[in-house]
Amino acid sequence: MPRYKITIEYDGTPFYGWQKQKGGSSVQETLEEAIFLLCGNRAETFVGGRTDAGVHALGQVCHFDLEKNYPAYVIQDALNAYLRNIGNSYISVIAVQEVEISFHARFSATKRAYVYKILNRRAPSPLLCKRVWHVVLPLDVERMQEGAQFFLGHHDFTTFRAAECQASSPFKTMDVCEIQKKEHLIEVHVESRSFLHHQVRNMVGALSLVGLKRWAPLDIKKALDARDRKKGGPTAPPQGLYLKYITYA
Amino acid sequence: MPRYKITIEYDGTPFYGWQKQKGGSSVQETLEEAIFLLCGNRAETFVGGRTDAGVHALGQVCHFDLEKNYPAYVIQDALNAYLRNIGNSYISVIAVQEVEISFHARFSATKRAYVYKILNRRAPSPLLCKRVWHVVLPLDVERMQEGAQFFLGHHDFTTFRAAECQASSPFKTMDVCEIQKKEHLIEVHVESRSFLHHQVRNMVGALSLVGLKRWAPLDIKKALDARDRKKGGPTAPPQGLYLKYITYA
Repeated sequence: MPRYKITIEYDGTPFYGWQKQKGGSSVQETLEEAIFLLCGNRAETFVGGRTDAGVHALGQVCHFDLEKNYPAYVIQDALNAYLRNIGNSYISVIAVQEVEISFHARFSATKRAYVYKILNRRAPSPLLCKRVWHVVLPLDVERMQEGAQFFLGHHDFTTFRAAECQASSPFKTMDVCEIQKKEHLIEVHVESRSFLHHQVRNMVGALSLVGLKRWAPLDIKKALDARDRKKGGPTAPPQGLYLKYITYA
Repeated sequence: MPRYKITIEYDGTPFYGWQKQKGGSSVQETLEEAIFLLCGNRAETFVGGRTDAGVHALGQVCHFDLEKNYPAYVIQDALNAYLRNIGNSYISVIAVQEVEISFHARFSATKRAYVYKILNRRAPSPLLCKRVWHVVLPLDVERMQEGAQFFLGHHDFTTFRAAECQASSPFKTMDVCEIQKKEHLIEVHVESRSFLHHQVRNMVGALSLVGLKRWAPLDIKKALDARDRKKGGPTAPPQGLYLKYITYA
């Protein structure tokens, strides 16, 4: 049984998230349907970074096993053709690679990188509709950058973890938490080996309070120390979040 | 009668172009309907750079006269509220300014800037769907840059002008024709006082032949010299084109 690693981009808008579930279409279900059309296998896909409803991916990674071998370009082109039809072009396979059977999209990952995009101006943007969080009140990016420093390093992220998070430990190491501004677009770039459920959106929600001057930058540290979701501020909406890439050893 | 200059962004996908016409919705008609809802005036709007069906705008400019004065922010917020409802958020007013009655969005303009975006990779991009021209075969950007030099300066652009173009003269002066590449995205930036109908899309169509190595860079010059649309290569599709901004004296 050959194992394939594929990298996919998707627009999360029409999906109930990555994971298969009753009552709505998911990225996983749509992808598995395309794999079935390709080869007649009911293959199960394993993902590197689960995404919630409305969250996008520039470089999501998953793996699956097939009963026979196909050249990588055949898998890519055939899946993209099926995804155009059954998935309305919302998912695209941007790379395919045959890998060792020891490779696991989730457990072999050594780093996940996300970007969260905020449009900070009075008017909405038709060209970025469902692609950014539109914040009308002015955000002070320097304050946000100051606050972001407190997320760096090894911390108990209980305050920034969703109630339904299933991770065994709330400790994570944040390697990057960098804020860039270009015209009206603010981007929050984060990198870590792994993240808790809603962690990035909760971190961005807290940083938005710093940017709005409702919190001091130091309040990020106080929130972390509180180890209490109720002290963490709002959860930023899903449409601004993108899984950028996942690194493997 | 106060005159207002407004700057708008739009997603051109759902429109038959800027101009009002029977049989389909246009940016102009939608905007004039929003102005009517704001003030009860059937105001006529005049545009800085007409766009075709499917073409986008980051900074389109138009002007109109109202029977009474409104603060700029009232016009902006009210139009955006109406555009959200009647225009499905496909148009957004990003700036409003009261101007002298001598200002004319079309005739006072001193420069128009466009960007044409090409996605150059095997896989389509769900996040850039209807936002780029997807070219699967590899484009040689250095050759395209070499070919683009021949567009600079004052030329007879008959070869790159649509049959239905109504301009009195085919002579235009190209101030900028610059090609940038970032990962899989190729951008063609052009600036001129004014453009002929389909001029940018025809220029990009010819440059794509250079990038595909079907034309030599010098064939751009030969095509210009031919003064014949049939020697100009294909017209690039509308969805990659954006009106960036318009400059006024």
